[in-house]
Order: sequence, then structure tokens, then C-alpha cells
Amino acid sequence: MVTEQGNALVAQSGGPTAAINATLSGVIRASHESTRISHLYGAFNGIDGILNERFSLLDYRIRTLDDLRLLETTPAAALGSCRVRLGDPEQQPQVYEKVFDFFRRHDIRYFFYIGGNDSMDTLSKLSTYASMTDSHVRMIGVPKTIDNDLAETDHTPGYGSAAKYIAVSVQEIARDAAVYASRSLTVVEVMGRDAGWLTAAAALPRLYGGSAADLVYLPERPFSFERFFRDVEQTWESKPNVVAAVAEGLRLSDGRYVGESSQSGDIDVFGHRYLSGAAREIGSAVRRELGCKVRDMSLDVSQRCASHSASLTDIRESVAIGKSAVRAAVRGATNEMMVFRRVSKSPYKVEIGRVSLERVANEVRRVPEVYINESGNNVTDECLRYMAPLITGEANVRYENGLPVHFVIPISLQEKNYI
Amino acid sequence: MVTEQGNALVAQSGGPTAAINATLSGVIRASHESTRISHLYGAFNGIDGILNERFSLLDYRIRTLDDLRLLETTPAAALGSCRVRLGDPEQQPQVYEKVFDFFRRHDIRYFFYIGGNDSMDTLSKLSTYASMTDSHVRMIGVPKTIDNDLAETDHTPGYGSAAKYIAVSVQEIARDAAVYASRSLTVVEVMGRDAGWLTAAAALPRLYGGSAADLVYLPERPFSFERFFRDVEQTWESKPNVVAAVAEGLRLSDGRYVGESSQSGDIDVFGHRYLSGAAREIGSAVRRELGCKVRDMSLDVSQRCASHSASLTDIRESVAIGKSAVRAAVRGATNEMMVFRRVSKSPYKVEIGRVSLERVANEVRRVPEVYINESGNNVTDECLRYMAPLITGEANVRYENGLPVHFVIPISLQEKNYI
Repeated sequence: MVTEQGNALVAQSGGPTAAINATLSGVIRASHESTRISHLYGAFNGIDGILNERFSLLDYRIRTLDDLRLLETTPAAALGSCRVRLGDPEQQPQVYEKVFDFFRRHDIRYFFYIGGNDSMDTLSKLSTYASMTDSHVRMIGVPKTIDNDLAETDHTPGYGSAAKYIAVSVQEIARDAAVYASRSLTVVEVMGRDAGWLTAAAALPRLYGGSAADLVYLPERPFSFERFFRDVEQTWESKPNVVAAVAEGLRLSDGRYVGESSQSGDIDVFGHRYLSGAAREIGSAVRRELGCKVRDMSLDVSQRCASHSASLTDIRESVAIGKSAVRAAVRGATNEMMVFRRVSKSPYKVEIGRVSLERVANEVRRVPEVYINESGNNVTDECLRYMAPLITGEANVRYENGLPVHFVIPISLQEKNYI
Repeated sequence: MVTEQGNALVAQSGGPTAAINATLSGVIRASHESTRISHLYGAFNGIDGILNERFSLLDYRIRTLDDLRLLETTPAAALGSCRVRLGDPEQQPQVYEKVFDFFRRHDIRYFFYIGGNDSMDTLSKLSTYASMTDSHVRMIGVPKTIDNDLAETDHTPGYGSAAKYIAVSVQEIARDAAVYASRSLTVVEVMGRDAGWLTAAAALPRLYGGSAADLVYLPERPFSFERFFRDVEQTWESKPNVVAAVAEGLRLSDGRYVGESSQSGDIDVFGHRYLSGAAREIGSAVRRELGCKVRDMSLDVSQRCASHSASLTDIRESVAIGKSAVRAAVRGATNEMMVFRRVSKSPYKVEIGRVSLERVANEVRRVPEVYINESGNNVTDECLRYMAPLITGEANVRYENGLPVHFVIPISLQEKNYI
């Protein structure tokens, strides 16, 4: 077992979340506790940092428990991120050689990659290459994505905080929409190209009698403008101010994105064609067809970075899954992704497990039929009960001068090597 | 003084804020404490509620101190709002007669109108009519607007919470923007048609070394695309990920809104012309001219209703100014609006005073020259120091099941009279 003593490397990849740094903190905490890990390195901008030798000994950059606590409520990826996806080893042997040369030179025995399904694909390829070349570097993926669309896990770290931000914001927006006595429609666009998990969160306050989106449209069902008009008019019969949540990835039955449907015109002064968002497009259509006051808006990037409103459950679980990744690796695991398994619905309880990377890579987990109502214009109570525990608790954000304090790893992108 | 014993009426008007219900709570608290006020009525949907007899005895609707505490962190106008603006008494004598008939029938001696400058204009006209007709109803305006553009007051209730939400969100967005190593521009659109107070808040984290907007464009200065391109390129020299905050009301030197500048084309499939937002327009222009990755977004309506992130200072001051309005009225004041006066900058200290309504009605207070830098692409440190105390402290929001609890006055818009 002596050969397992060595260094570990961690990197972050894909779109940031409010909880991805909490997972990083978990990796740091468990690495520090492990007698098998001498030093923990962080690669900057994911796999790019390995290829370009941009990395740091994290022991030098994050020194105190207080740093770690702040890191856990700091949004976006503290180590930076990338959108790089590795090709197959046969196509890019030099890239793989470079990565494993890096591992050898820095005595890396454990590699933790925090990312979504593209990142798991990259890690899976690296694992395959490792076994082909008799490398003993152990590779563990730690999931993160606000989209909640990774296979094999009950939910993904980062989703709970994003869902909480959406539920909190939509509850406020619905309250705001209700102040005027005249009829109106508010269309709120929520992130999610292929899966409606985030959009579903706009319905969550309903579970507790709060103000929620009245209508909810997920990309799992084809969108019809005609049906939408009917749904809105029907809802107006019981209340004047209707709020609809729509996924950015809504598609028409012909497969085109709703946001693409204004194709013939909309050229600006420079001759450039716009791609309108789904909410914008639906808002315009309602203004013309139903002639009422319409507001359309998008919750945009705050959905993934609003750590001031992060879910305590999400932050805690994200730390825990990062720790578990380290413990699993030193105990021998490799070529796996950590997952949550919900072992009890009520009271809510999860356990952390592992699955083979290849079962996750490139898979998309969509919202199941049983979570969508028959009319396709809302989610079921079962769906609300699935989401509810994930947004509970408020992350312990430290404020100074009225603003959350973030922990920034003191690096400069101008530096080349960072140790 | 016996004649002053009677009832009071309160109403809310204009766009909602995160603090307008805190002011309502202040009016309720002080009315309850006053021996001169027998009952406090609330009119629903502002002046509309008076004209249509839609009102309630608030004693019946808000019963406990706990209700009041929740009301103070509930967004949007709990009594509903309106956009009605009264014409002159000579033009609409029957409207004025209706209002004062309402006052007589319900023995209203004090009227508190919580609103922006349109509402102050309405209240000023009612006051003039009162003195013309020897009515003794005392009328006090209580300011509210996230825009911070009311004359004669250091700042407006509601502004601090909106500014805090913007500063917190931009700090997070800037963090999110920084995760990739490649050049990018993020354009964040902030509310404010005529005044740049809200947009200025995007620079606030700079005061404490946080991540802030690098470039800030207020409607007080004409906008130039050419100059913007230059500013962005210059900022790229020191960092790859530039964040620019732009006011929705930005105008070109010819007076057109930036968001209107795409006029020749952009027709959708239904032949309808879009009005693009400022950020969207600027984003498109940069994509074409500089060819980098650009994200454009708008913080939208959450700026005025995100009470989950409200400023404790703002909420406390909003309660206090509501209380002061009641105390001033029972002591004889009328035809005035309550204002904040900053009597000390450091430590920050405000006193509450009053000014004549006619000095406020229809005036717009813009960001002064001394708060804008010479290049017109940011605000000065003096501006940051002006804003800083207004966002301090976190409102004591009660959460249940992971969501803020709102207090909703139990009325139904279907009811006609509500007592």
C-alpha cells in the first residue's frame, strides 16, 4: 500500500454553480485528513490547467478553516472552469500523454474532477487510457450541475441552490405581479435546454400555499402557442395576474426552439438576425393575440451563481460528496462518479454512493412523465415533494458592509505557473 | 382639538418595492399608538380603491405584531397599487367630490399616500382641493421608489434594498464571468429610465475590493457605441472578463433610447416590431464589432421585489418614515411629503423631515455630475460612499421550508366592499 502515498489533483469544469466550491472545499478537507495524500494541487480552468501547466499547491492558497467556510458560499468556480472536451485517445494521443506526464512529474495518484456530463465523459476517457497504459492514477468524478440532469444520481450538487433561487424569485415576482387589479401575464424564462428540473422549481411555493407560477412548461413536452393562449385565458377566470414559467429549451412540435420561431424577420440595423428567448417570443405572441399587459423576463445567470440565496442542504451535501470522493479514492475506487441515493423520502435522507463513469457520461436525465400533469402545463405534487427537501435551509453567508464576502483564490491569470 | 379625533386612511401607489410594506407597517404601528386615530382604513389599489369603494378596516386584517413583522419583509404592495393620476379639479370635479365624499362618510381625517412623484402630484392636487373646499383632511405623502429620483430627500425608501440586490447580484455575476480564461464581455441592464442611481449600485462592491461592474453607464450621459467599444478594449488590457452595467434608459446623443436603435428591421413572423433592451442592443453590437463572447442580461423585476435580499437599513428607515408621517399629521402637518436628511456622513445618520408636496411633485432628481467620472464610464468613490450605508444590514426574513414567508392581506379582488 506504500505506493498509494502521493499527491492529489482537483479541477472544476463546465458551467459554475452556487455549490461547486462547496464540493471543492469537501475535497480539500478530506485530502487534508487523509494520510495517503501528501499534497493537494488545483488545476486552473479544468483540464486546460493540466495541459498548460497552470496549477497550484492548494495548501499555499487556502490556509484556514475560515477560508474554507467562505469558499463554501462563494459562487462560480474558484479554480476557474473550461469547456474543453477530450477526443478519443487514438485521435489525440499527445494530449493524453501530456496529461499523464503531468501526473507523473507531480506524483499525482488521485484526480478529482468536479463537473457535469461532458466532464464525466472526459474523465471516463482518461480512466480508460490509464488502464490501457497501466497508470495507477485513480480518477473520481464529482457531479455538479444546476440542471439536475445527470444520470444515476437522485439529484446533483448545485441543483438545490438554483431551485431555491428560482422558487424564491418567482414567489416574489408573482407577488409583484399581483399588485394591479387589471389582467396581466408574466412570463418567466428559466434555464434548462433539455430537462425541465429548474423550471419545475417555479411551482414549488405552491406546496406551502405561497405564490407560485400558475403555469409551468417543461422542454419534456412540445410547446403549442394555441394551447398556451387557452391555458392563460382559463387561468384568468380565477385570477387577474397570471404567472407562467417557461424553460429556455422549449421546442415546438416540429423540433424548432420556441425562441427560434421568429425567423423571417427581426433583423437589426446591422443586418444581424436575433435569436429571441422563449419568454420573449411567447410574450410577444400573447401581446398580439390576447392584447393584455405582458411582462417577459429571464432569471438568467443568477440562477447558477446566486449563492447569497443558496440552499443549506445543497451546500452541506456538496461538501459531503466532495469528501466522500476523496475517501473512496484512497480506499481504491477509480473510474467512478459519486452519486446521491435517496434512501428515505420522509424524513428526507440521502446516502452517497458511486457508479461507473460510463453509465453517466453523455446521458441526460429528463423529468419523468409522472412529474408532469396531464395537460402538460404544470408539475405534479409528487414532483414538488421530490424538490422540496433540496431547497431547505439557508446557507450561512457572511456579510460585511451589506455584501456577501467571497473567497477568491489569490491567483492571477497572467502568471504561468502558480506554485 | 376634539375635531381631530377620527379615522385615517392609507394607500399605496406606483411600482412596488421591497420596502413599501415596511412603510405601511410603520403607518399601522403609529396609527395604533395614536389617541387621535380611531381606526385605520386601507384603500385597495391606491386612489382607485377610494373611487370604487374598495377598502378595509386594517384592524380586521392585520391583527398581530407578528403579522406586522412579516409584512415588513413582504415584497410588492400589500394593499395593491395603481397607475392612476388625477387631472386638475376644474377638469374632473366629480372625481374630487367622490374622494371627499368618501372621506366624509368614513370620517377620514388623515390620508397617507405611499408613492412616487406621480402619487405626490395626485396628493398635492387633493390637498389644494381640500384647502379650497375647507376640508380639514390632512394629507401626508410618504415617498417610495427604487429609482431614488424623488426631489428633496437624501434617498427614497426602497432604494437601499434595490441597490443591495443589484450590488449582490452583480458581484455574483462578475464572479461567474471570471471562470473562463478567454476574453468575454457581460452586459447587465439595470432599471432606471431617467436617473442612474440603480445602475450606480453595480459599482458598489468596488468600495470593498469585491467584484463589481468594471464599466458603468448612466442615463445622465449620452451613450456612444464607439466609446463603449474603446472602453471595453481598454479594460481587456488588464483583465479578460469585463462586466458592464448599463441603465435601461440609456440614450444616444440624438435622444433615441439605445434599445430603440435597431429600428429598420427586427420584425418577427407576425410582422410585429421588437423594442430591444439596452443590454441586448449593446451586446449585439459588441458581438459584431469586437467578435468576442458576449452575454447580455437584465436584472429585471427582481430589482424591485427581491425582499429576500432586502437591506435592513432600508426596511428600518421605511418603517420609521411611515411612523413619522402619522405623528406629523396628528400634530397638524398636511400637504407635505416626508423626507430623509443625512445629518452625518460618517457615521451615517439620517433625520426625518418634511417638505411641501409641490416641491416634489413631477420633479426628477438625477445623479449629480460629481458622482460620475470624467470619462462617463463609471461612478466616483464619492458616489459609492453615498450609497454604501443604504445597503447595510440584512433584513430579518423568516424562512419556512426553505422559502421566505410573506404576509398577504386576506382580501379577494372579487369582493366589492371589504370592511
